[in-house]
Amino acid sequence: MALLETRKYSQGSALSGVNPDLASERQTPSFSVEKLTALLDGGEENTRIRRAVVEAIENDPVFSRENQYFQSQNEKYEAAVRKAVHLQKKMHEMGWTENGPEFKYIYSALSGEIAFLLHSVFMRSISMLGSDKQVAKWIPLATQYQLIGCYAQTELGHGTYLQGLETTAVFDVATQEFILNTPKISAIKWWPGDMGRSATHTVVFAQLYVQGKCYGVHPFIVQIRSLWDHSLCPGVTAGDIGPRMNFEHTDNGYLMLQNVRVPRENMLSKFCEVQPDGTYVRQGSQQINYFTMTAVRITLISYEAVIPLMKACTIAIRYSVVRRQSKLKPGEEEAKILDFQTQQEKLLPHVAAAYAFHFINDYLQDLFNRGYEEIQRENFDMLPELHAFSSGFKAMVTQHCASAVKVCLLACGGHGYSLLSGLPSLCTKILASCIYEGENTILFLQTARFLIKCFMAASAGHPVPPSVTYLAAVKPGKCPAKNKLDFLSPDIYTNAYQHAAVRLISSAAAKLQDLIQSGVKKHDAWNECTVQLVQAVKAHCHYLTVKNFVETVERLETKGGIQRIMKHLCDLFALHGIFSNTGAFLHDGYISGAQMDMVTASYLDLLAVIRKDAVPLVDAFDFTDKTLNSALGSYDGQVYQRLYEWAQKSPTNTQMNPAYERYLKPLLHKKLAKL
Amino acid sequence: MALLETRKYSQGSALSGVNPDLASERQTPSFSVEKLTALLDGGEENTRIRRAVVEAIENDPVFSRENQYFQSQNEKYEAAVRKAVHLQKKMHEMGWTENGPEFKYIYSALSGEIAFLLHSVFMRSISMLGSDKQVAKWIPLATQYQLIGCYAQTELGHGTYLQGLETTAVFDVATQEFILNTPKISAIKWWPGDMGRSATHTVVFAQLYVQGKCYGVHPFIVQIRSLWDHSLCPGVTAGDIGPRMNFEHTDNGYLMLQNVRVPRENMLSKFCEVQPDGTYVRQGSQQINYFTMTAVRITLISYEAVIPLMKACTIAIRYSVVRRQSKLKPGEEEAKILDFQTQQEKLLPHVAAAYAFHFINDYLQDLFNRGYEEIQRENFDMLPELHAFSSGFKAMVTQHCASAVKVCLLACGGHGYSLLSGLPSLCTKILASCIYEGENTILFLQTARFLIKCFMAASAGHPVPPSVTYLAAVKPGKCPAKNKLDFLSPDIYTNAYQHAAVRLISSAAAKLQDLIQSGVKKHDAWNECTVQLVQAVKAHCHYLTVKNFVETVERLETKGGIQRIMKHLCDLFALHGIFSNTGAFLHDGYISGAQMDMVTASYLDLLAVIRKDAVPLVDAFDFTDKTLNSALGSYDGQVYQRLYEWAQKSPTNTQMNPAYERYLKPLLHKKLAKL
Repeated sequence: MALLETRKYSQGSALSGVNPDLASERQTPSFSVEKLTALLDGGEENTRIRRAVVEAIENDPVFSRENQYFQSQNEKYEAAVRKAVHLQKKMHEMGWTENGPEFKYIYSALSGEIAFLLHSVFMRSISMLGSDKQVAKWIPLATQYQLIGCYAQTELGHGTYLQGLETTAVFDVATQEFILNTPKISAIKWWPGDMGRSATHTVVFAQLYVQGKCYGVHPFIVQIRSLWDHSLCPGVTAGDIGPRMNFEHTDNGYLMLQNVRVPRENMLSKFCEVQPDGTYVRQGSQQINYFTMTAVRITLISYEAVIPLMKACTIAIRYSVVRRQSKLKPGEEEAKILDFQTQQEKLLPHVAAAYAFHFINDYLQDLFNRGYEEIQRENFDMLPELHAFSSGFKAMVTQHCASAVKVCLLACGGHGYSLLSGLPSLCTKILASCIYEGENTILFLQTARFLIKCFMAASAGHPVPPSVTYLAAVKPGKCPAKNKLDFLSPDIYTNAYQHAAVRLISSAAAKLQDLIQSGVKKHDAWNECTVQLVQAVKAHCHYLTVKNFVETVERLETKGGIQRIMKHLCDLFALHGIFSNTGAFLHDGYISGAQMDMVTASYLDLLAVIRKDAVPLVDAFDFTDKTLNSALGSYDGQVYQRLYEWAQKSPTNTQMNPAYERYLKPLLHKKLAKL
Repeated sequence: MALLETRKYSQGSALSGVNPDLASERQTPSFSVEKLTALLDGGEENTRIRRAVVEAIENDPVFSRENQYFQSQNEKYEAAVRKAVHLQKKMHEMGWTENGPEFKYIYSALSGEIAFLLHSVFMRSISMLGSDKQVAKWIPLATQYQLIGCYAQTELGHGTYLQGLETTAVFDVATQEFILNTPKISAIKWWPGDMGRSATHTVVFAQLYVQGKCYGVHPFIVQIRSLWDHSLCPGVTAGDIGPRMNFEHTDNGYLMLQNVRVPRENMLSKFCEVQPDGTYVRQGSQQINYFTMTAVRITLISYEAVIPLMKACTIAIRYSVVRRQSKLKPGEEEAKILDFQTQQEKLLPHVAAAYAFHFINDYLQDLFNRGYEEIQRENFDMLPELHAFSSGFKAMVTQHCASAVKVCLLACGGHGYSLLSGLPSLCTKILASCIYEGENTILFLQTARFLIKCFMAASAGHPVPPSVTYLAAVKPGKCPAKNKLDFLSPDIYTNAYQHAAVRLISSAAAKLQDLIQSGVKKHDAWNECTVQLVQAVKAHCHYLTVKNFVETVERLETKGGIQRIMKHLCDLFALHGIFSNTGAFLHDGYISGAQMDMVTASYLDLLAVIRKDAVPLVDAFDFTDKTLNSALGSYDGQVYQRLYEWAQKSPTNTQMNPAYERYLKPLLHKKLAKL
């Protein structure tokens, strides 16, 4: 508590201290908030570094988000570019480097409202897919911002199905160049961030043709704007794709290429190369060209899904203990809305989910790092599992978090709908994460292919990756729980999840085989199973998330009450999942109706237990007021004052009414004359 | 087909006819699209009138929404006021009156982007709650726009819980006036539409005090701005509450009142009156003061939930037959995304839901009209049922439609996320309908009170309203279905829904009674049951919606294939509900696991059947391109061309890059110098 109190959370000096209803929630937490924050950060040292980064960013007026909710698209874009340019200076000043411990906190401290994010994807593509020579040439240029890079993959007509991309790169052996074209309207590159108005260079994904033969999609470095006057290069047409549901600060763009030539050296060639005579050479799988996306998918889980959910929970929970509405008992004062069971049931499971997803993300990061080391040693064995993991969890976590943020918004009623709550921008932004870097349904189905393969292999007694060995252990049986307390046993619920996942995967596999054996063609049979396959993948990912949460809790130290509260959250996450998907567990009688009533009872009991620690649990996420930028979610809980004061700053209150002279005055005066 | 073809759906003359993939979908519908449209309109004559209204509105350039997606908040507000003022002229020109058959189509034809909508709520309040004298005084003034009215109920600190409102109206017997005050910050009226910058008058809901005694919330007519120069009246502070997630065209406002006096005659007094000597007289229930909200809730189901869902379905379905992505079969061309089972499963159940909700809305309208007739005869017997119906169905339909519109958006991938698709604005707008006119969870629980009362009464053999007599008929038993085709029998699934609803209501009632009998106080016991009560109410509303759909289908004529396709949709709606809530039906074994597999099989089969008619089914909603205002959803399916052309109109493409000279040029040039 001490450290939290000493930090300058309060924004409005005119506001008078912490709202007493909120203050009382912090008086007797059952655990050390500081210790929990350190756990989330992976150690106290990290907490210290993160806070220093946040403080440096927030004390710099260039990075201010104060007027964010009142800005036009142009103003937002300009501010984002200004911040991106200023960030270079800031990093230099502060001694922060791309490889330093501060780097990973910067984006989050800026709340993502910054330009040139695709510049780093541009760099990452080159680092991962470029030859040593290409890395040596381009990375220093990019690091010093001697160019602004972006990443041009998606087209008007093709998104997640990369094989269908229509942009072409034809090798001209005579000039040792590739000739790039977007040959039809659906081939126009569409959506790339930073492309509409900013980027000078881009990595273009195009179908490689050498001597009439197509070798599939490959990445090429292409300059699109002059470094001198920013005019478009010959053969290039580019612009902004128009307004989106969010990301107004980003210039998502389009790109048309007409016979644009780049030298042979501009095809990224760590794994694939076209030699001067036109010979095509490949190392490893062609899939490696998509490896940037695997990396991006794993990175985004934390930044674009889990952290936004943590913010939304912080705002909604704090507001829910300040807002009083309706009486729980006649004659008493109105109750805090978090004391209503329905409000607890809306919010607390998502607090638990935020923790669950934070821990599964740690797990995925480790897995990815190990996999990446192997790939650098040119061992591609882990690629399928990494692809399956990154796809399934990206889809599962973003889908869950997007729904959860919407629930947080609605749980704040009308005030949640005000932009000043901070929730609408979280809500519209997170929705995009269900689409970009792979549309979720398609990603689920890519994981399904992996699971079905593994299931078949496991059934035949072949070895499978560790994450799916459980598939071989199909045991019929019933849940042994005898009373509601049994459902607080991790073994009981983990086994239930495992059972449900195995049942769904095996029954989808059985349906698939039956269809094929009855003469349905393989592809049609697959299509007819996809609704059930998606269910199976979700169950698999849900199971692994629960299992990982249980294992994380087991490893925690018992000091400071951390393990105890995390055990409660783990139970809540697990039981909420059963309560919300009762059918998956009831279907074959693994859990009986009577047992499901026990689940419900335990689940509802847990809500009341965790309710007491709700505010400390979100305080531990350790967001500053400036990061949250929410009139509802500030540390001091001065909700109504802040809503009122922030509203005064709206241009609709500071500017003349544009409609009065022209429309309202004539309307009213004409009528007055008749009175 | 003929009539559709002769209408001018196409917007862009540069575009070349109907996309062949979309055209082929319309070649062999299994039913008459025109007949289905007429069914939805309630007769061919209504279709004719509606189309005439739409045509007149769309041909008038003042009502154009062409630049809607590029406008600033001020521009949207100004356009909305301009349209509202122009509409008066237009109505006069066209001979449309408030009581004429055209009236109900105007709002929808304008797609809601118009100011002064609260003016009609102001009028409706006076018509419903005002004395004959008040109606005679105010309604003509309002009709002729000699004032601009709005409706001030919600406060910063109180929304749905109206009893908690803190604004006061104290009767001063000496001057025969009411003195109105918003005595603290949480009492500030907050959210009223048209109040921020437009309204001159408002109906204020305030706690009535006479001689120190509080009589609860009553409505008062208060002038807030001068008719002469629009300045705020003495004692009045008002302004805009700042940006929201949508409704940028509306000036949602706040209002502070400091000793504002209005004459005794300004309290709406059809049912309650303060006589000159301070005697308070009431007829009927005090609840009658909330009757405006009952009416508004029922009206909004269609305009704010069902029609937006129909639009979203139209856009998503049309796009899904134009978009081709990935191959279903190797060697073939890429498939229309609607041919993927997962895409069918996302969209087709919502098409079915749009029809289901349209029909239940008709049912509610009838019920409301009957109830209102009774109330005018001062018979208030139907009030509780009307209140329960309007609350539960408002909550159920808006919640379902809000989720469904989001699904439609995500089903269109990245292009759905572009404002140009029309889906983001539908999505953010419909979300508000879950909050306004009663927050959905609170509304569900109001219906729950009614249901529990009725359940107790029915169990004790007392008479209950017709809609809940089924509660008395609790029969244990099992679903008799033997194969998947049995689940296409309305009796089978209607009984399953009935069984699930009765089980959930009776088990919530039993838990409530057990808690009370074990000594838990009544209010605490209620709170501990609320999560399950909400489930029970949803099941009840779902059951009635299915039952009403079945009865509607039975009444349809068999000609034109209408009954056949509606039967399919009814089956789909019902089976989708079971498939998505399997636990509710499996819990007590009413449906077994094996039967649930039959439900799944039948459900997935239906998707493939209805898939064939998907486009005609949304064509029947009969939206013009201008109404949809969607680059993805136009009748001609020229998706990519329209996205490209519309993007060109974005100010980000027509204006200079605001960041170039200031930030990008110095960045790049400084570096160039070093090269």
